[in-house]
Amino acid sequence: MIDVGCFMNILFYLVPKNDVMFLYNDYTLRQALEKMEHHRYSSVPIISRSGKYKGTLTEGDILWELKNRRILDIYDTEDILISSIPRRRDNEPVNINCDIEDLVMTSMNQNFVPVIDDNRIFIGIVTRKSIISYYYNQYKTLEKLK
Amino acid sequence: MIDVGCFMNILFYLVPKNDVMFLYNDYTLRQALEKMEHHRYSSVPIISRSGKYKGTLTEGDILWELKNRRILDIYDTEDILISSIPRRRDNEPVNINCDIEDLVMTSMNQNFVPVIDDNRIFIGIVTRKSIISYYYNQYKTLEKLK
Repeated sequence: MIDVGCFMNILFYLVPKNDVMFLYNDYTLRQALEKMEHHRYSSVPIISRSGKYKGTLTEGDILWELKNRRILDIYDTEDILISSIPRRRDNEPVNINCDIEDLVMTSMNQNFVPVIDDNRIFIGIVTRKSIISYYYNQYKTLEKLK
Repeated sequence: MIDVGCFMNILFYLVPKNDVMFLYNDYTLRQALEKMEHHRYSSVPIISRSGKYKGTLTEGDILWELKNRRILDIYDTEDILISSIPRRRDNEPVNINCDIEDLVMTSMNQNFVPVIDDNRIFIGIVTRKSIISYYYNQYKTLEKLK
């Protein structure tokens, strides 16, 4: 039997295949790079020509494979300072004294939230995973009280 | 005035600096690559030597910079099939008829959750962002009913 509540929830939040950037599993790395550079997603689904889900390729998978195959020569990276590398988007930090709502809002668009003090000194991070757990557990607890 | 509730919440979920892998902003790319390959985080904080938060460097920032500087030659990637690239971890899919709890649990460790049908045909994705929004809003609604 289908759990109608769940079914509707997933469909409600579904980004349908037509709106998802994906790679076919017979692509060459060049094809993948051209598609990924255009969209700049860090991780994308891989699909077979018959439409089956095959897995996910990340920018990191590509980077480390290029290094392992020595297409990327590690010696060429010795003279590059990381401060000279353009960064697509810095994770936005929150102040340790911020409102918890700020923390949640900030976590929506990034994997982790850097936490800083009033002098912008880095104190640590809060992961998005722990925020999902928190709200999920709060929600479960409150739901029981309904 | 410090909001003690929030303060405690953030501290409770904080991963302190000592347990966070970060880069110093005077590192060379080689130093960064060696540290990042060891830990395999897709994105890491950058800190100054005086401890200030400077931003975040991603595997993608590095990949595209290497391509732009032509340290990575795009022609070298034409004969590599993406199916031959080792993938660190495929995002785990859920069935369109799955329990919503499965969806939340699956979303904890990945940026998006691929959704498939009974024949493993790819239907679309659910982003982690939409799951956080959902529980945050549910929680807010239930809290008002307390």
